[in-house]
Amino acid sequence: MAEAVDPKQRLREICRVAARVFYEKGYDGASMQDISEAVKLTKAGLYHHVGSKDRLLFEIMNYGMDILDETVLEKVKSIEDPKEKLRQTIIGHIDLVVRARDLEITVILHENRSLKGALRKKINTRKKAYIHFLEDLIAQVQDQSGQQRLIAPALAAFNLLGTINWLYQWYRPEGPITQEELTEGCVEFFFRGLLGGGPPSPARPEDHNPFV
Amino acid sequence: MAEAVDPKQRLREICRVAARVFYEKGYDGASMQDISEAVKLTKAGLYHHVGSKDRLLFEIMNYGMDILDETVLEKVKSIEDPKEKLRQTIIGHIDLVVRARDLEITVILHENRSLKGALRKKINTRKKAYIHFLEDLIAQVQDQSGQQRLIAPALAAFNLLGTINWLYQWYRPEGPITQEELTEGCVEFFFRGLLGGGPPSPARPEDHNPFV
Repeated sequence: MAEAVDPKQRLREICRVAARVFYEKGYDGASMQDISEAVKLTKAGLYHHVGSKDRLLFEIMNYGMDILDETVLEKVKSIEDPKEKLRQTIIGHIDLVVRARDLEITVILHENRSLKGALRKKINTRKKAYIHFLEDLIAQVQDQSGQQRLIAPALAAFNLLGTINWLYQWYRPEGPITQEELTEGCVEFFFRGLLGGGPPSPARPEDHNPFV
Repeated sequence: MAEAVDPKQRLREICRVAARVFYEKGYDGASMQDISEAVKLTKAGLYHHVGSKDRLLFEIMNYGMDILDETVLEKVKSIEDPKEKLRQTIIGHIDLVVRARDLEITVILHENRSLKGALRKKINTRKKAYIHFLEDLIAQVQDQSGQQRLIAPALAAFNLLGTINWLYQWYRPEGPITQEELTEGCVEFFFRGLLGGGPPSPARPEDHNPFV
C-alpha cells in the first residue's frame, strides 16, 4: 500500500480492503495474515494501524456509519419539509446499499455478533441514533398529514430498515429492476404503508363528490 | 444425546443444537469438535450422522425451509381467498421468525455465503420457490382488487421478506411491542403499501360528497 498523506484516508482504505476479506472468508475465517496480505502491509504494520482484529472490525463498522452520515444524512440536513426529507433519506440509503462500492462494509455493519463489549456498544449507539432520527422524521410526517397515525413510528422505521437492509440479499443493479424503479417503488410503497392513500384507483372517483 | 427412534428427528435435534453453536461462534469459528460436544456425540458419531461440516450447514438450512413449509405453508394451503391466504402466510412467517425456538436456524438460513456449489443451489431453489409463491399470491391479490397494480409483485414480495427477515435484528417478544401489535402493524402496513387505502382519516370526510 502506497503511503497516503491523510491517516484517516489510510485507515479507510484499510477498512475497505479488510471488509472485502471478512465478507469473503467470514470474520472468524479471516486471519490478520490474510488481511495484511490484502492491504499490502506487514502484519506488524497492520497492527500498528488498527490495533487488533476486534478494533479493525469496529473501525469498519464505524466507517460504515460515517458513510451513512456523510453521503445520506449530511445531504438532507437542510431540507425543511419532513416528507421530502424522509423521501430523500430513503433514496440516499437505498443508493448506499445497492451501489457496489461499499457493499461489503454495509453487509458487515449488520453482522455485529462478532463485536463485543464497549466497541459493540459504541456502534449500537450510532445505529440507535439513526433509528431515532428516522422515527422522529416519520412521526413528523404523520403529524403533518393531519390524519390519525396508522402505524407506530418505531415499527414503520424498522419496516423501512428491513426493506432497505435486505436489498443486498436479492437486488442486482444489472437488472431486471433498474435502481430508479427500485427506489421509486420502495418510496411509494413505504409512504402508502405509512399514510394510506396512493394513486387513485378505478374505484376512487365514485367516492368523490360527483357534483364538484 | 439419547438414542432417538426416528432418524429424521435425530438429525433435526442435531441441527437445532449445531445451529446454536454456529450462531454463537460463526460458521468458520465453530469446529466439528465444538458441535460434537454440544450434541453429546463423539466426533466420529457426528460425522456418521451428518457427513461433513458443509453438509451439516446444508441440513440446518434445509431444516429451516422444512419448518417454513410445515408450520406456515401447509396451514394456508386450503385457503381459497388470495388476500386471506397472503395475510395468514405473513402472520405465520412472522411467528416463525420471532418465536425464540428456531431463532438460530432462521438466522443461519440467510447467512448462505458459507454454503458452496450443489448444496447452495439446492437451498436457493427452495428459497426461490417460496418467493415465487409469494409473488403469485401478491399478483392474485392485486388482480382481485380490481385496481391498477401499484407495485411490481416481485418488489412487493422482497419488501415483505425484508421486513420479516429483519425482525430478528430488533424485535424482542418481552416488549414494548407485543407480537399481536407487531403482526397487525406489519400486515396492515404491507396491505396499504400493496393496495393503497387504509382506515379513513379525519381529513377524508371532507373529500366525500357532502350531499349524501
